[in-house]
Amino acid sequence: MSSRRFEGSDFVRACRGQPHGRVPVWFMRQAGRSLPEYRAVRGDGSILDAIADPDRAAEITLQPVRRYGVDAAILFSDIVVPVHAAGFGMDVVPGTGPVVERPFEARRDLDRLRPLDPGTDTPYVIETVRRAVDVLDVPLIGFAGAPFTVASYLVEGGPSRHHERTKALMLGDEALWHDLMDRLADLAIASLLSQVEAGAAAVQLFDSWAGALSPEQYRRGVAPHSARVLEAVGTTGVPRIHFGVGTGELLDQMGGCGAEVVGVDFRVPIDEARRRVGPGRALQGNLDPAVVLAGEAAACEAARAVLAANGGHPGFVFNLGHGVLPSSDPDVLARVVQLVHDEGDVRTE
Amino acid sequence: MSSRRFEGSDFVRACRGQPHGRVPVWFMRQAGRSLPEYRAVRGDGSILDAIADPDRAAEITLQPVRRYGVDAAILFSDIVVPVHAAGFGMDVVPGTGPVVERPFEARRDLDRLRPLDPGTDTPYVIETVRRAVDVLDVPLIGFAGAPFTVASYLVEGGPSRHHERTKALMLGDEALWHDLMDRLADLAIASLLSQVEAGAAAVQLFDSWAGALSPEQYRRGVAPHSARVLEAVGTTGVPRIHFGVGTGELLDQMGGCGAEVVGVDFRVPIDEARRRVGPGRALQGNLDPAVVLAGEAAACEAARAVLAANGGHPGFVFNLGHGVLPSSDPDVLARVVQLVHDEGDVRTE
Repeated sequence: MSSRRFEGSDFVRACRGQPHGRVPVWFMRQAGRSLPEYRAVRGDGSILDAIADPDRAAEITLQPVRRYGVDAAILFSDIVVPVHAAGFGMDVVPGTGPVVERPFEARRDLDRLRPLDPGTDTPYVIETVRRAVDVLDVPLIGFAGAPFTVASYLVEGGPSRHHERTKALMLGDEALWHDLMDRLADLAIASLLSQVEAGAAAVQLFDSWAGALSPEQYRRGVAPHSARVLEAVGTTGVPRIHFGVGTGELLDQMGGCGAEVVGVDFRVPIDEARRRVGPGRALQGNLDPAVVLAGEAAACEAARAVLAANGGHPGFVFNLGHGVLPSSDPDVLARVVQLVHDEGDVRTE
Repeated sequence: MSSRRFEGSDFVRACRGQPHGRVPVWFMRQAGRSLPEYRAVRGDGSILDAIADPDRAAEITLQPVRRYGVDAAILFSDIVVPVHAAGFGMDVVPGTGPVVERPFEARRDLDRLRPLDPGTDTPYVIETVRRAVDVLDVPLIGFAGAPFTVASYLVEGGPSRHHERTKALMLGDEALWHDLMDRLADLAIASLLSQVEAGAAAVQLFDSWAGALSPEQYRRGVAPHSARVLEAVGTTGVPRIHFGVGTGELLDQMGGCGAEVVGVDFRVPIDEARRRVGPGRALQGNLDPAVVLAGEAAACEAARAVLAANGGHPGFVFNLGHGVLPSSDPDVLARVVQLVHDEGDVRTE
């Protein structure tokens, strides 16, 4: 399937800041634990096993599109799939997240990050994309973890509050840090290109923990590597989304990394985010996912505030500011989709 | 001892933005796990037991002043001490943090937050302040948890990444939320007043997790309560410091809450923070605590960048942007203190 099949869709046109019909909406982690139909097909065992099974992974990818009528699907996968497939021993533990058997410590550990051959190492990802795209009537978003966020798991050994080992490496051994980031950028590029080749109509680069960094740390240690990933994927022509949490102080730099769309969490209103990112970029966000837990009235009020802050700008994709929380009520999310479609305004001047 | 004894100190004068000799420096969590002398006296059992023992708590308060020559001591205690003393069953678990036996769920739980009588409920805090002040030749900083951050522990039941239950309560039942915040503000006020009465020369209000909130959530649900705490303590005349992490988007509101000093984490450079907080407030911060783990050279470079961003402004207290990490090397922290004292510039115009 061609990744360009959905060039005329609201989602792709919004990513490009082009005039379109209605405000497109999808949710990060829309496919997953918050859905009963997900729990019904998920099965036991590691999530990496479910991801490696195209039957289940394609079905899970499709579920939220059927339920919510969102304007895009996102591949059911995980940001650690490429490093896992390349042989850097790890698992994803329910309730915890990615856990690494032997954390990255020294130069010798670079050998544990060989290049990815997607056709051989992650054929199930390619197959899942193909199967989903075969039946979807909305664009499929492929994704990868950005080098910094993946590095933080490898170096810390798992999720971390302060990312202290990662920063100690970044600041204490810059040569090794950049070599590590180079390897992880190569893995992200290979994975993203294989997903677009298989039919993904857009990609998102998840740098979820970039907000742990100061602007100077991001400038020296991270931005060049994320920019290289985005540039390499730019050859495909599909829109690229660049996302992180708590990145209010980094939005100007992220706007310069090359993606068509910059993701914004709920801490910065969309109009202020647009000022920081600068012209020529679309934005994606930024409803606080916790608001969904406060019920339909609170969620609708907050969703309207997001739409108001966007003010009808055509370069806007409605989303949460972070992933759907597992305890979310799907009916509240369905109401938010309806509200965005009914009340969202797209200026046409 | 009078809490006004140190009015002429560099620390207090910097808090007030008055001319003074050299840039004062202290570190959040300077008393604690990173020090071998702390581990030698800490003993086994809950940290709440050590806090309730004035012999140990006063000694631990003094240790970092002796070792580092910092310009202020901070009381060895914990932000959950008042709620714990008021009978809201909880403990502080090593490696985890505060853990609540029965989380706050409904209106009936307000009854578990009776008013604090410091003389009866926390006499050990008062005694620890007295003993420390008796021997210190620098100001002692007392502290309390801000209502939001304490509420987040009570509602979540422990540390939380997304503070989702807390936000669901804040947004879903505003009347109950404000009643809870009122109780917690009263507890903070009673505790802080007792500490100043016993000789604390300044106070810090820790709203460590306020950065989890959007500006609108902070405005409606949090700022009025923190402002009430700060106003009540203002009657004592000691400088007040108002601190949070990831508060870049809240600095203007925090500047309006009444404290003489606003704490800034490492994500916002001091000059930009000063612009956001507005005139008439001093700033405290903002070296990334993780930089200390990268070694002396990296820490010194980053400390110099903090001093440069302050540009000699007299309203500045050097600190970390968050607490000392347990794995920090005390020798690196000692070198940072020396650097700030030797190289820090205070303009006198």
